[in-house]
Amino acid sequence: MTKFKWLNDAWYVAMYSDALKAGDIVPRVMLNQGIALYRKADGVVVALEDRCPHRNAPLSLGKVCGDDRIACAYHGLEFDETGKCVFNPHGEGRIPAAARVRAYPVEEKYGMIWVWMGDLGNIAPTPVIDFLEPGTGYVHSKPNVIKMNTPWELIIDNLVDLSHVSFLHDGVLGSRDMIGAKNELVQTGNTIVVSRIMPNVSPPEYADLLYHGDQKPVDKWHTVTWMPPTIILLDIGLTDRGAERSQGTGVYAAHLITPETEESSYYHFLAVRWNLVQRSPEEHERIEKRLAEARVHAFANQDDPMMRAQYEVMKRYGGELKPVMLDIDVGVARWRRIIEKLATAQQNDAAAMA
Amino acid sequence: MTKFKWLNDAWYVAMYSDALKAGDIVPRVMLNQGIALYRKADGVVVALEDRCPHRNAPLSLGKVCGDDRIACAYHGLEFDETGKCVFNPHGEGRIPAAARVRAYPVEEKYGMIWVWMGDLGNIAPTPVIDFLEPGTGYVHSKPNVIKMNTPWELIIDNLVDLSHVSFLHDGVLGSRDMIGAKNELVQTGNTIVVSRIMPNVSPPEYADLLYHGDQKPVDKWHTVTWMPPTIILLDIGLTDRGAERSQGTGVYAAHLITPETEESSYYHFLAVRWNLVQRSPEEHERIEKRLAEARVHAFANQDDPMMRAQYEVMKRYGGELKPVMLDIDVGVARWRRIIEKLATAQQNDAAAMA
Amino acid sequence: MTKFKWLNDAWYVAMYSDALKAGDIVPRVMLNQGIALYRKADGVVVALEDRCPHRNAPLSLGKVCGDDRIACAYHGLEFDETGKCVFNPHGEGRIPAAARVRAYPVEEKYGMIWVWMGDLGNIAPTPVIDFLEPGTGYVHSKPNVIKMNTPWELIIDNLVDLSHVSFLHDGVLGSRDMIGAKNELVQTGNTIVVSRIMPNVSPPEYADLLYHGDQKPVDKWHTVTWMPPTIILLDIGLTDRGAERSQGTGVYAAHLITPETEESSYYHFLAVRWNLVQRSPEEHERIEKRLAEARVHAFANQDDPMMRAQYEVMKRYGGELKPVMLDIDVGVARWRRIIEKLATAQQNDAAAMA
Repeated sequence: MTKFKWLNDAWYVAMYSDALKAGDIVPRVMLNQGIALYRKADGVVVALEDRCPHRNAPLSLGKVCGDDRIACAYHGLEFDETGKCVFNPHGEGRIPAAARVRAYPVEEKYGMIWVWMGDLGNIAPTPVIDFLEPGTGYVHSKPNVIKMNTPWELIIDNLVDLSHVSFLHDGVLGSRDMIGAKNELVQTGNTIVVSRIMPNVSPPEYADLLYHGDQKPVDKWHTVTWMPPTIILLDIGLTDRGAERSQGTGVYAAHLITPETEESSYYHFLAVRWNLVQRSPEEHERIEKRLAEARVHAFANQDDPMMRAQYEVMKRYGGELKPVMLDIDVGVARWRRIIEKLATAQQNDAAAMA
Repeated sequence: MTKFKWLNDAWYVAMYSDALKAGDIVPRVMLNQGIALYRKADGVVVALEDRCPHRNAPLSLGKVCGDDRIACAYHGLEFDETGKCVFNPHGEGRIPAAARVRAYPVEEKYGMIWVWMGDLGNIAPTPVIDFLEPGTGYVHSKPNVIKMNTPWELIIDNLVDLSHVSFLHDGVLGSRDMIGAKNELVQTGNTIVVSRIMPNVSPPEYADLLYHGDQKPVDKWHTVTWMPPTIILLDIGLTDRGAERSQGTGVYAAHLITPETEESSYYHFLAVRWNLVQRSPEEHERIEKRLAEARVHAFANQDDPMMRAQYEVMKRYGGELKPVMLDIDVGVARWRRIIEKLATAQQNDAAAMA
Repeated sequence: MTKFKWLNDAWYVAMYSDALKAGDIVPRVMLNQGIALYRKADGVVVALEDRCPHRNAPLSLGKVCGDDRIACAYHGLEFDETGKCVFNPHGEGRIPAAARVRAYPVEEKYGMIWVWMGDLGNIAPTPVIDFLEPGTGYVHSKPNVIKMNTPWELIIDNLVDLSHVSFLHDGVLGSRDMIGAKNELVQTGNTIVVSRIMPNVSPPEYADLLYHGDQKPVDKWHTVTWMPPTIILLDIGLTDRGAERSQGTGVYAAHLITPETEESSYYHFLAVRWNLVQRSPEEHERIEKRLAEARVHAFANQDDPMMRAQYEVMKRYGGELKPVMLDIDVGVARWRRIIEKLATAQQNDAAAMA
């Protein structure tokens, strides 16, 4: 259905660290590839192709056994962390050279398990997300993950262009005052930053809860950073009219999208707050609860149905229709141009190597 | 799966008038096209392509706003009744010329909303159904609509050849006596009329309820009119043996089929009765209730499962198998020949204009 | 999805005899063909193509009527046991020569209804399964049938290579001691026999229940016979260490697979026991119950999910991946080679006849 493919040469979030317990093998489909994740005795995560080369049984149905191996549940072949079959319990125990599966590079960072889906020769450092670095002292939200039956690129579109909050999330994350914001786009390398500056606007519920809770007008800003291929960082803040940003308060949020298939995606969401308004513990807890509710409501009850509906329309008309571009689409147009360029370059690389 | 396509150049029933309340936007898929229907302040119905040209959001998720416009729920673009985007709330408010959607001609008639699905240049008058015209004084049944997971042409086949009532609806709508009827076909232009005359037959339950309720033999007739592409009018009546038809009683019924996709259809059904037998109000109500039950039973529990089963067989064998034609298929063969001719002519038109 | 097709020229089990009552018409899809089965007045089974040639209605929705015919539920055409339309109730009753459906040869044997799916010119005798022949005196298990959403060839793979019982069915049907068995393969014509001899092994629960119930080591054997295309016969037995086989006990089991579609199969299972250990009636019943539970658990909760998971992996990667072959795959490799040869020969025949 989609016009352009995802990037293989990238780190994608497989799951949060605490979703992978010692002794378990957890399956994930990422970019249409089945992956079995497990922890070695020392806690280090291994990600293997989830397919026994003997007879296509998923290795994730097997179990972790000695020497950091996993054993296939069907006929007991054992594989080490490099994906090599190192034990055949049957007959003379002969192991064909082809009995190996792909091992994916893994890094654990920011409480998440990241998997490199591309060529080993092209491996890059894992992404850096400043506000998630240790020692910042920020207050973290509870991490969320939502499975969405939506192509990943519609989710990126949604996040890169926040003009929709005044409509789809009116009253919760956006307000009519905020429509007037001017989009500004800055590109640095392949990263883009889209800013919306909104002076003297009535705060929607979410922003008001973060701040004074009195519904008085504020100066507000939304800054969206997109890093290829699927990392979105939001800087959502507000301050008193005319005051410095640093005197206000806000949220830094990471929205990390992992394509599962062409039609479905994992949406990982993790936020931190800065410059928290001092409140009684009870008041704080009440507000945190409401903020979490509002976020889940916006994503699950407003964004997700809208994106599924878009996708249904696209499918009815046989693919991605040529969209009419507005001024607000400056970020959408740009990220799509960058990803297309990168995808084409990767295909060229692949062609050159073949 | 199907051998021939539907006709675009035709009026199709989208829904009954009372299914579209002021202030609502109701979606319908017709001939694989998504359509958003709403009423203007003066009550007139508008039918727009259900797809915002900006980013493929269904307009039916939006809302009716001032000046008879509808606003997209995603980014607030507003469209007027001609399908033109007339308001972009963002930035300088620039509106690209391409920001328009198709507006479909609509007419409201006989308590139904009709949509012209074809070229504007070929537009024709809406169909005339005599017995639904105002001022006839007929007693109307409650209108029904059934969604069927069946290609529309199997439904037309079903209705054009009523010989099946003695088998599939034996006892309810048909009886064994009625098998002997002779089919007669008359074609006038592209309209066909198939008659079945059944003198001196035992009445099935439905006919008996309409008339004397004594199960005594009657003279009975079924007259089916098919008007391209999907209008079926039935004239089902009975009278005393040897008496004039006008001394008997009967039902005129409109079966109006709207293809949703190649595999699914809306089936609208509306009937009137003439020359009602005088009965006490209680008796009348009892009989009306049983007639409605019998109809729903026949369509939903007998016709629908049969047509789905036919379709499953057709799919298993990879399409529409060449059927063996019997004498009773005179109407089936004829309507299919006419529709094929009309569809070919429309494609020729389209080719000539391209 | 699958690399090779099933064989048409073969007998397949449609169902157990007692699943087809007099007066009923029961549908089955076999090798993607819809078949309607019914009994004549004398009890003999008829198998007709489940598709009325008039308008594709399934004949299995109809009913058995006089003279061993079945009548279509839609328009009442009647077909005799040869598949010929012998009655058209309408008009002059003319019957087009093309109004006939395929009649499949049927035999009832071993309490099962077998259908020949191939060319009539190639018809062969029904398979002989010694231990199901009348007069053997064996004690029969309750016959089972499971519908599996798995291609038939994965089920044959599963059964031809019983090395998996020590892993997938560990503790129930297999034990770790049994891994060491040596596979031996003997081919006679197109039939293969794969034996696994396991002297001095701890018996898994199922074998222990058949025998002494004391978990003491035994000599055990598994002998698998595959007869093309989908018949698997198992000889599972155990005896005291060093004793003759005939002094022990065991089970002969027939696993009869019928492809429904390329993606789904019927799995018929029927076993007999020989040389039963004498026990009190209560004890015998307790053990029989547990054996049946263990079998159903192994097939439905262990084999079926594994094979579905294999198939999901195969689909994700776009077909049957070239498997890595181990020593235990001697049977798998051989039956696949034989079936491919037979399928090619059948296609050659078809080509020569065309």
